[in-house]
Amino acid sequence: MNEHQYAVIMAGGIGSRFWPMSRHNFPKQFLDILNTGQTLVQATFQRLTDFILPENIYVVTSNEYVQIVKDQLPMIRKENILGEPSRKNTAPCIAYISFKLMQKDPKASLIVAPADHMIHDRIAFKKVCLEAFSFVNKHNALITLGITPLKPNTGYGYIQRELQSVTDNVYKVKTFTEKPNLDLAKTFLASGDFLWNAGIFVWQVKNVIKAFEIYLPEMFDVFVAEKDAFNTADEKKALEHIYPLCTTISIDFGILEKANNVYVIPASFGWSDLGTWNSVYENLDKDYLGNAIAGRKVMIIDAAKCVVHSGNKKLLVLQGLEDFIVVDSPDVLLICKRDKEQEIKDYVAEVRRNIGDEYL
Amino acid sequence: MNEHQYAVIMAGGIGSRFWPMSRHNFPKQFLDILNTGQTLVQATFQRLTDFILPENIYVVTSNEYVQIVKDQLPMIRKENILGEPSRKNTAPCIAYISFKLMQKDPKASLIVAPADHMIHDRIAFKKVCLEAFSFVNKHNALITLGITPLKPNTGYGYIQRELQSVTDNVYKVKTFTEKPNLDLAKTFLASGDFLWNAGIFVWQVKNVIKAFEIYLPEMFDVFVAEKDAFNTADEKKALEHIYPLCTTISIDFGILEKANNVYVIPASFGWSDLGTWNSVYENLDKDYLGNAIAGRKVMIIDAAKCVVHSGNKKLLVLQGLEDFIVVDSPDVLLICKRDKEQEIKDYVAEVRRNIGDEYL
Repeated sequence: MNEHQYAVIMAGGIGSRFWPMSRHNFPKQFLDILNTGQTLVQATFQRLTDFILPENIYVVTSNEYVQIVKDQLPMIRKENILGEPSRKNTAPCIAYISFKLMQKDPKASLIVAPADHMIHDRIAFKKVCLEAFSFVNKHNALITLGITPLKPNTGYGYIQRELQSVTDNVYKVKTFTEKPNLDLAKTFLASGDFLWNAGIFVWQVKNVIKAFEIYLPEMFDVFVAEKDAFNTADEKKALEHIYPLCTTISIDFGILEKANNVYVIPASFGWSDLGTWNSVYENLDKDYLGNAIAGRKVMIIDAAKCVVHSGNKKLLVLQGLEDFIVVDSPDVLLICKRDKEQEIKDYVAEVRRNIGDEYL
Repeated sequence: MNEHQYAVIMAGGIGSRFWPMSRHNFPKQFLDILNTGQTLVQATFQRLTDFILPENIYVVTSNEYVQIVKDQLPMIRKENILGEPSRKNTAPCIAYISFKLMQKDPKASLIVAPADHMIHDRIAFKKVCLEAFSFVNKHNALITLGITPLKPNTGYGYIQRELQSVTDNVYKVKTFTEKPNLDLAKTFLASGDFLWNAGIFVWQVKNVIKAFEIYLPEMFDVFVAEKDAFNTADEKKALEHIYPLCTTISIDFGILEKANNVYVIPASFGWSDLGTWNSVYENLDKDYLGNAIAGRKVMIIDAAKCVVHSGNKKLLVLQGLEDFIVVDSPDVLLICKRDKEQEIKDYVAEVRRNIGDEYL
């Protein structure tokens, strides 16, 4: 493995669409939401070790989750687990790890991976990532992985690629699009040159820092001013200066949609962002009635097409439910129709207003 | 209050139709199933104190529930809580308390009341009971209270009364009937001389003992043989001899359906045997969508006509359910359609077979 290749797992999300399974103090990426025996962040780490040296894998998360990451990834060195003082979306997070790596290894190249996605085919994933590293190590290129769409999903952003590849499987990005409506998504799918934006990026650290200098110069300046503190005892203090000065902005919006050196590699490795209960439902094994059950003691009488999440001790006996989400946690039970999954965040808001924060 | 008037609360049932709220080791009569702030046995005791001296109120229950009765009725004298060595239906239970009281007070008259029924109007109940005591103290009569039916319920046994009352509101019983089908129940209701059999009895102790001698002579003999042990240190040992020799039989079938001195007082005091979730549903307050909620932290989004039982700590968020029973206990969650309430005992059997006794 290449000692100059690094990975950063972004593990700071709060996963409120998976409440009450995902909680403010224990969000989605730390849960075994697919009932595989591994939490999502554990699976993400393991997948990266196929082609990145473990000591080159970093996790950036919220300060409050640092201990959870330590517990779930005991094999990672403590100093590779980085706590952010506040949530500022992906651009400051990527600036942080980039300035830190630049200070340590100016030849660093980096893969940026969300902690809470599913990737089914590790071998295909590794192959695409190595192609990406190979390309960015030869070019000043910012690569994003594009998932070949399987259906007109309206929950994802899309990337339109140029028709001709630059080399092999690498294409210049023509446009990024917002989440489309269904008609537009169908057009995208039919056209063949649109890909799902998976939020997985590969680049040389020095080149993404250049991009910060051009497209997010204020953020760049803030980090430059403190750069000598990285990898020293002052790093934490520096971050507490830096973060309040950073805009809350995504790397996509802040840099990728503006830069002219953005490339995409189309890929098919069984990806989902697991953004909703229905996407989890699609990726869980189902019984012959179409129920996706995570939980060892669930007795289905004649329920169908339900997604059920519970612990392994409590007994659930379910009769007569069709197309429901049933989530039983020790202090909250949620039952709602699968087609109301987008409303779960409203329920969370109502719980906060009417009942209190202790259930969030 | 009359010092020769006694009450016995029969509190030995297992309430399996209310699983998982009602459990083998903590059945229905010990639960606040109507969300009133009192368990059913507590409400039954309190109701009886309106016209029976507290020291004259006894509770007969299974040995395994004696401690629960002590906990829930701390005001009852320990020696008034009687444990049965095994479940033998109501006749042996009533023989036990009757021989015990006879030994102590030959002038005793007794009201027998199930622990797990609902009675809405305590004042009306007291009035009817005092009428019954007044009658049995003058006659060798076995009185059963008959509830004026409100609808053609097929879940209750019916009592047909003679057309002419013997005195005031007391009627001779013509026949007892089994649970009727709907057509027959409608005929009963229309006829006006059928009443629901509430299983609440009033009689002089010496007279019910006479009835045992005539109609259940083997059981009578077994109790007579040990009668000197009652109200002594040997009582518990005597019961362990007696109970295995007793037939398992109800007082209705063993005596009341055969005796010719059985009378009924028609009454209307808002009674239900709370025999099913639907009868509980009918007797709980409902929100404007028809949901009957017992549990302090239940958030209904757009559920309707559900009966929901939960503890007061856990938050339940329910959306999209209609006509469901939702029971959340710490170790079991049951969700089933209200029209499947009769199947709950089958679910219990399946849990026993496939999962284990720890959830029963």
